[in-house]
Amino acid sequence: MKELEERITRDGQVLGGGILKVDSFVNHQVDPALMDVCGREFARRFASVRATKVLTAEISGIAPALTTAMHLGVPVVYARKTKPITMPDQVFLTLAPSHTKGRTVELIVSPEYLADHERVLIIDDFLASGQTILGLARLAEASGSKVVGVGALIEKSFEGGRDALKSLGVQIESLACITRMEEGMIEFK
Amino acid sequence: MKELEERITRDGQVLGGGILKVDSFVNHQVDPALMDVCGREFARRFASVRATKVLTAEISGIAPALTTAMHLGVPVVYARKTKPITMPDQVFLTLAPSHTKGRTVELIVSPEYLADHERVLIIDDFLASGQTILGLARLAEASGSKVVGVGALIEKSFEGGRDALKSLGVQIESLACITRMEEGMIEFK
Repeated sequence: MKELEERITRDGQVLGGGILKVDSFVNHQVDPALMDVCGREFARRFASVRATKVLTAEISGIAPALTTAMHLGVPVVYARKTKPITMPDQVFLTLAPSHTKGRTVELIVSPEYLADHERVLIIDDFLASGQTILGLARLAEASGSKVVGVGALIEKSFEGGRDALKSLGVQIESLACITRMEEGMIEFK
Repeated sequence: MKELEERITRDGQVLGGGILKVDSFVNHQVDPALMDVCGREFARRFASVRATKVLTAEISGIAPALTTAMHLGVPVVYARKTKPITMPDQVFLTLAPSHTKGRTVELIVSPEYLADHERVLIIDDFLASGQTILGLARLAEASGSKVVGVGALIEKSFEGGRDALKSLGVQIESLACITRMEEGMIEFK
């Protein structure tokens, strides 16, 4: 999507270790108008998969997942990384290695909000190694739901996430696909 | 706001220890249409304060803050509770006691996104003791910004947060103000 690519080119910063910093419009400061456009675009691309729920991971997946869910007219669930006191003792929990955090994180969803026969659209900010998204897919499957699509704002295709997600057998969409990046240079597909 | 009060009455659960569980539409699963209505209402109530930025705290403040910012046409910044690797070493950091977590949490904002002379509208999911909101106000003030309003989806008036925030001298709005609650009974102002 041109609008997102242009914003990444203008305001994204390539840091060491394969990190793309988009803290000024996605991850710490959020541009709500851009998130709305992205949510509308995901809703358009996934119109035919008949999702009944959007699933994401806290924290930075929340904004694009919320706007996508808004345009699809379905609820959004964000997997928690720590179990809040309001959550029942019996939960769906999986572990996912986090590249940017340099450690494994827990992804936790309450069975109250992910039940049998949901059609789950997974939305996240990044598709890099795909490990977080695979974790979310495991949670969906554990609940008896079916993953029907995967969308990410920004894909770093050189990290192989798309291949890792192939086994899900679903439509995968990214709104900006980065094929190469170095300090001062970001190349899109 | 009638719509939010009705939803709390229908789907909210009063747990022990003064906890109101709204995980089915605010905190774990989010109803995007309801959040949109709430954001529009905050934008209406704060139309005259001329906010240039919305500030909230991760995680559960993000949804209402995002929709408010969307309707105001300004960016939203969410204070982080752990410092991500993309953040510079020099940050604004304050501590806030968290009732629901039973411990003190850090609230961290990068000076990149909260600068001199911003007019900051603080939005959060709950106004209970007011400690998180006071923490956000300290971050705003540390950056040289001015807090121009405080909005919370749900106020628990019996926890005294509104009094604690009086020193800010700004307009305070809650969309649902709970004056009393017990298991099976929630009373609104």
